[in-house]
Amino acid sequence: MSKNVIVIGSGAAGMTAASEAKRCDPSAKVTVITEDEHIAYSPCVIPWALEGRTGWDDIVMHDAAFYKKERDIDVLTRTKVTAVSDADKKVTTEDGKEFVYDSLVIATGSSVFIPPVEGKDLKGVFGIKTVNDGKAIEAALKDAKKVAIAGAGVIGLEAALSLVNIGKDVTVIEMMDQVIPRIADADMAAPVQKYLEERGVKIVLKAPLQKVCGTDKVTGVVAAGVEYPADLVIFATGVRANLAIPKMLELDIGQLGAVVTAPTMQAYRRGRLVKDIFLAGDVVQCQSAVVAGPTMSQLGSSAVREGLVAGRNAVGGKAVCGPVASPWVSAIGDLQIAGTGMSLGLASWYGLDVVTGKAQGLTRARYYPGGKPLTVKVLADRCSHRIIGAQILSEEDATGRIDWLTAAIIDGTTAEDFAVRAENAYCPPTNQVRDVVLYAVDDLLKNL
Amino acid sequence: MSKNVIVIGSGAAGMTAASEAKRCDPSAKVTVITEDEHIAYSPCVIPWALEGRTGWDDIVMHDAAFYKKERDIDVLTRTKVTAVSDADKKVTTEDGKEFVYDSLVIATGSSVFIPPVEGKDLKGVFGIKTVNDGKAIEAALKDAKKVAIAGAGVIGLEAALSLVNIGKDVTVIEMMDQVIPRIADADMAAPVQKYLEERGVKIVLKAPLQKVCGTDKVTGVVAAGVEYPADLVIFATGVRANLAIPKMLELDIGQLGAVVTAPTMQAYRRGRLVKDIFLAGDVVQCQSAVVAGPTMSQLGSSAVREGLVAGRNAVGGKAVCGPVASPWVSAIGDLQIAGTGMSLGLASWYGLDVVTGKAQGLTRARYYPGGKPLTVKVLADRCSHRIIGAQILSEEDATGRIDWLTAAIIDGTTAEDFAVRAENAYCPPTNQVRDVVLYAVDDLLKNL
Repeated sequence: MSKNVIVIGSGAAGMTAASEAKRCDPSAKVTVITEDEHIAYSPCVIPWALEGRTGWDDIVMHDAAFYKKERDIDVLTRTKVTAVSDADKKVTTEDGKEFVYDSLVIATGSSVFIPPVEGKDLKGVFGIKTVNDGKAIEAALKDAKKVAIAGAGVIGLEAALSLVNIGKDVTVIEMMDQVIPRIADADMAAPVQKYLEERGVKIVLKAPLQKVCGTDKVTGVVAAGVEYPADLVIFATGVRANLAIPKMLELDIGQLGAVVTAPTMQAYRRGRLVKDIFLAGDVVQCQSAVVAGPTMSQLGSSAVREGLVAGRNAVGGKAVCGPVASPWVSAIGDLQIAGTGMSLGLASWYGLDVVTGKAQGLTRARYYPGGKPLTVKVLADRCSHRIIGAQILSEEDATGRIDWLTAAIIDGTTAEDFAVRAENAYCPPTNQVRDVVLYAVDDLLKNL
Repeated sequence: MSKNVIVIGSGAAGMTAASEAKRCDPSAKVTVITEDEHIAYSPCVIPWALEGRTGWDDIVMHDAAFYKKERDIDVLTRTKVTAVSDADKKVTTEDGKEFVYDSLVIATGSSVFIPPVEGKDLKGVFGIKTVNDGKAIEAALKDAKKVAIAGAGVIGLEAALSLVNIGKDVTVIEMMDQVIPRIADADMAAPVQKYLEERGVKIVLKAPLQKVCGTDKVTGVVAAGVEYPADLVIFATGVRANLAIPKMLELDIGQLGAVVTAPTMQAYRRGRLVKDIFLAGDVVQCQSAVVAGPTMSQLGSSAVREGLVAGRNAVGGKAVCGPVASPWVSAIGDLQIAGTGMSLGLASWYGLDVVTGKAQGLTRARYYPGGKPLTVKVLADRCSHRIIGAQILSEEDATGRIDWLTAAIIDGTTAEDFAVRAENAYCPPTNQVRDVVLYAVDDLLKNL
């Protein structure tokens, strides 16, 4: 008999799981239930869509009709799940309908975390996560000159540059003492801040947001005692897992505030695997590739990776997800900043003693025209000598290098082993004869 | 007492070894002896220098005066070594001078292999390896309209496009049935051939060169019975290790026609390590990262890697070189083709049973403007499931991805393990949410 697979959530994790389940078992009946209007879009692209580099229609890859026609997957949009019973294997929606499942995939994602400050619900205050957020910001921008962005993470910074590029007066408010505070080190983030400031983005650091000002509509924000006038406020203050459904099912929630999963993406309940419930995406916490414990990996790439495993296993497959280093990259104007594993800040949070190495070079041979500056920083654990993190700042070719270093982190490679074993391809128009990554590891070894 | 280090050879391997020896032991007296006039230049750049993208002076990074002044290294150019005695630890040069050494580094490199065909010594026939080769070709091009290039490896193809770009009529003659025959697979090389042909390069395959025609000066070449008129002939037919010095010392020569070395880059004599003799660069054969046996890695990047180890150990260091996968990349106009480990051809030569996977995608998210096509092919050994090779064709970002796959080959990663463990960084302007490398491995797994 064909399996009934219900997927709750229609982001990258949910739609990937649905498609993969159907691909692995074409006889399966796959239904996606989602509160969203738009499905299968890339939230990462919203900053660029605001600038008009790509249209809102383009970033929604497929609609429900496509999934029905091309993949025989039913997608119920704007449909809220109100109850789930694992005993009855049944999902109930707001309109009273019931759906029986053999396997359930929970991919309810996350929501923008807006700190509980006064004025946060005023007109002119937005999150930046959904297509509807993006469209609402776009509409509000027509009458806005001054924009305040709370949070100097990569989404906040990408949005800041996009808005300056279309003529807005943008101030980024960050409570920490650097931009990209959680995942980048201060020395790697500083050139990004400088680049943005040179292009007119105002950045205020060490300024916790205290208040959004205005009566019916936003007029500004107060941070660290100073008022910044604003016609529009965007919260890019991170996301939190949407736990309503997991809590209904009494699934184990981990110490980082997301659902604990096995490498099979199965849920736990009171420490024991739950047979037919799988999860993927921003709603889960992951096994860290660096430390023996959990980490968060709320990235589109992680959502797809986990969605593939959840979808395959939902139809009886035997897939697993390895531990995560969470590589990331952000394009801010001509700059690319990328990272993987732990930053100094994260490593310090975990209590690790870190040694770093850093090197600067070019993306082409020295004498070949057009080379761009390339800075690579590598972090190792002083105790085990394992590479635990890396960051790259360049104008091109950051992602492949960060994926290479990610493999080293995942494989538990020591800095010494990396230096002995690593090889790089070379030709004058594409890199240096010895890659800057290797020079960074050399520098690290001197400091170990 | 300070160590006497003699380095024979002044290419990437020799100059790297000399600099590294001096860096590790500033008290060492380091002398480089070389037959060459120009030292420390990049032969890889000659095709582009012919086109005028960079000048001959630019590609010679440093001269002998620089090494003396900046690094206290003596470099004797245009000086031929006529005898070496390991018993006396003494090098004798053509002018009768003697140099005593504590450690000897042999980095005599390789020479262009010109097949023994009639007419190979005619005026107008050139190799393409040294700065003087490049300058001689440049001078001869003034009176040449038609150019024949023997050999469709990457150097031959890069040179062919450069010469077409400056208005020459170029025919590439290749004995095998594809371009880049040794290190690329036919399906990955075919688009490169098409790209070149669209730009006016004539390519003749399955045509072993039989004869260079002319009386005192070249008038053409004959290949597979057909005569191709030419005013100038360039041999890009590979290189052979320069073994005169290793043979004087009775060092062990391996089955691939180069000197056998330990991971320390020490030489062997009748199977036993020779204490104070180190080698690096095109003159050695290497331990393969794919099979339990030797391979050749006559690349600039390998020369530098080996030179660092030889130089460090020549002053008492304890460095080792890991086994090699020999990643490479070539830029041919807007195309980048890169590879690592074994091609199908090489794997077949070694007798391996190979499974392949292939995927095509873009270098940016589908909806983000400016993405370039990206094709990734991955090869695995059917027996062990280990990834043993990969090739990438793109217009950008090939090198970092090939270095990532190189790490997988070197670490003995199976395709299954790669699929479970690999993670990639993502943002819409720099790649797809799931990298094409991962799709290629997925495809491979279907075929295993």
